[in-house]
Amino acid sequence: MQSNRWLLPEGVQEMVPPESWRLESARRQLLDLYWRWGYDLIRPPLIEYLDSLLTGAGHELDLQTFKLTDQLNGRMMGVRSDMTTQATRIDAHRLAATGPARYCYIGSILRTRPEEPGGSRQPLQVGAEKFGDAHIDSDLEIVSLMLETLGLMGIDNACLDLGHVAIYRRLVAHAEMPSDLEPQLFDVVQRKSRPDLDALAASGRLDAQSHARFSHLIELNGAPSVLADARDALAGIDPGIDAALDRLGEMIELLANHYPQVPLFLDLAELRGYRYKTGLLYAAFAPGLGRELARGGRYDNVGTAFGRPRPATGFSADLNLLAALGHFDGGVQGGAIHAPAGSDPELLASVRRLRATGERVIVATPDTGDAIDDGCDRTLEYIDGRWDVRPLSSTTSPSKD
Amino acid sequence: MQSNRWLLPEGVQEMVPPESWRLESARRQLLDLYWRWGYDLIRPPLIEYLDSLLTGAGHELDLQTFKLTDQLNGRMMGVRSDMTTQATRIDAHRLAATGPARYCYIGSILRTRPEEPGGSRQPLQVGAEKFGDAHIDSDLEIVSLMLETLGLMGIDNACLDLGHVAIYRRLVAHAEMPSDLEPQLFDVVQRKSRPDLDALAASGRLDAQSHARFSHLIELNGAPSVLADARDALAGIDPGIDAALDRLGEMIELLANHYPQVPLFLDLAELRGYRYKTGLLYAAFAPGLGRELARGGRYDNVGTAFGRPRPATGFSADLNLLAALGHFDGGVQGGAIHAPAGSDPELLASVRRLRATGERVIVATPDTGDAIDDGCDRTLEYIDGRWDVRPLSSTTSPSKD
Repeated sequence: MQSNRWLLPEGVQEMVPPESWRLESARRQLLDLYWRWGYDLIRPPLIEYLDSLLTGAGHELDLQTFKLTDQLNGRMMGVRSDMTTQATRIDAHRLAATGPARYCYIGSILRTRPEEPGGSRQPLQVGAEKFGDAHIDSDLEIVSLMLETLGLMGIDNACLDLGHVAIYRRLVAHAEMPSDLEPQLFDVVQRKSRPDLDALAASGRLDAQSHARFSHLIELNGAPSVLADARDALAGIDPGIDAALDRLGEMIELLANHYPQVPLFLDLAELRGYRYKTGLLYAAFAPGLGRELARGGRYDNVGTAFGRPRPATGFSADLNLLAALGHFDGGVQGGAIHAPAGSDPELLASVRRLRATGERVIVATPDTGDAIDDGCDRTLEYIDGRWDVRPLSSTTSPSKD
Repeated sequence: MQSNRWLLPEGVQEMVPPESWRLESARRQLLDLYWRWGYDLIRPPLIEYLDSLLTGAGHELDLQTFKLTDQLNGRMMGVRSDMTTQATRIDAHRLAATGPARYCYIGSILRTRPEEPGGSRQPLQVGAEKFGDAHIDSDLEIVSLMLETLGLMGIDNACLDLGHVAIYRRLVAHAEMPSDLEPQLFDVVQRKSRPDLDALAASGRLDAQSHARFSHLIELNGAPSVLADARDALAGIDPGIDAALDRLGEMIELLANHYPQVPLFLDLAELRGYRYKTGLLYAAFAPGLGRELARGGRYDNVGTAFGRPRPATGFSADLNLLAALGHFDGGVQGGAIHAPAGSDPELLASVRRLRATGERVIVATPDTGDAIDDGCDRTLEYIDGRWDVRPLSSTTSPSKD
């Protein structure tokens, strides 16, 4: 079929009115929100050399990144598949700020494969990152902006999942196991698969104590009360784990205070972005959707590779997804004024004046003169010696006066 | 040098504040302008299958397009290097409008090589296209929007170059020459090289009459009065040429009426986009810059390949370039309010209220408490039992009352 030739690649979408205007309105309102919170807009490039694009980001992002050859010098470039590393580079290298720095961004990213079946390969990534401050208030600020973002997009039923990479990481450090077992263990923990964990222990490659600890870990998810169970099971093993549990407790308290309406969940085996994350992890879900709406976390010192270790925390989301799921309507105005074709200076001046006041005016041409655009609800007509805007019905039954 | 690792590829730029906010402001004002003129926003995808991306666009765009393999099915995709073809596909296939349709767009495009030395490989393309109306008023509308775009960006000294592809095209049809000579002739005409033209005639591959005509053609550029010379030299050869000259005459008259302040030039050997253009060509220049600010033209029936021949005319520009050259300041507000760290509900309520009124409030954390962000010109302070905004100087010399 000829029409199939014009199908877009899987997971790649285009947008037309009115959705395109709605998205534009969402973009403006979100960037204005971030601006009011002190976040400054950065526009990272669409392509960079791979060296720089993938620094500190790990293997997963490498596989997700489309590669291009720079015809000017033969070097490998990539199309950005995430803007967090770009923000880190800009903070460390381009802006080299000394105090806390807040950045926000919005732009398309590309992925070689969708993150989940049926997912997008061209998300419109929107996000915010805060560098230079390790205090939990900065994590709270980022989680707050993430929740404000969802609220602005009309997603009122989001719930929040909290985790912390240090717990798993420290448990691994205490485990007696061959080093090549770790990726396999990571996969098992991510899938929360008790049978597979038992199999690792049965093979003799994971010690019994660690087996017990990881078995606890994959059960430690649910309401914030899980934190008490986590303390029972994991306290005293390692100061890093104790500190992580304390941090989670503080965050739960802060969020209960600031966003009491948002349901909170703990998941100590949730390790998205584990390879470069260093502290608290946050993800927003909608009940029944089964996928993330937004995610973020702390990734202190990722900037080291760019010559500038700094505390860092941030979140990002796919605005296309949020716009599809939320009931944000964008306040997009309808209606337009049909103006006839012609070169009468008074007509042209009327059109100019109306547009200057924000009106939408669609001017006919002699070829299209009588046809009135679907979007028009008024017309510009010459009545009693002057150009005047009338409701569209008046064209079919002319006004008497 | 380590820092060289983070250099961006040649012709690829990033943007940071305040330029990034200025550009965002330009984007909004431009899209609002297009909206008021009845143009509807489309968001074509960043990548498409090559089949579809390069349809009707010709060889030049093919070379300019970065190619990617779709890992899901092995098909070749390209990163868009121009959005005009995408707009044509959307008009023909996705929206299939019957009456006149007006579209605008903004987004990054990528090019394998810059169009001129030192040029951008990641222009931020902004443009407008009108489909379904062949009347010259539609060309006027597009040229008007192009000039309004430059005006909004604070480029007040633009001049306009007019051309028409039919003149060269019909002269070629009348020429006696081997068909493989045409690309070479095209190149010679583009470069306006009289010696090379003489050489083509001397080689016997171009007939004497055509040699004389093309020699005229490359001289036919300058003030609108050149049109009279063109009529003397070229009238009566072909009805298509006569119609093109008439069309140019009409356009000159319309523009002199609507934009009397814009200097007009004619260039009958200017053939940018010749392979798919079909009628009037327009380009805006700034004196002394030596390169185009914006360009456009008529490309009727390019949609045939998508199953829908329609009249079409449009323009596009690189917003990054316009922002760099124009004195558009974007009305970006400065100033922000520093708020101290803390969990006092009254403090949090004050911050929320200030942000809701559009104020920018930067909240400190206990780790950064005393440091005031560079951008702040006021602080939120607890004075006389309530939180109040004071000028920043009041923190160093507290107010007495």
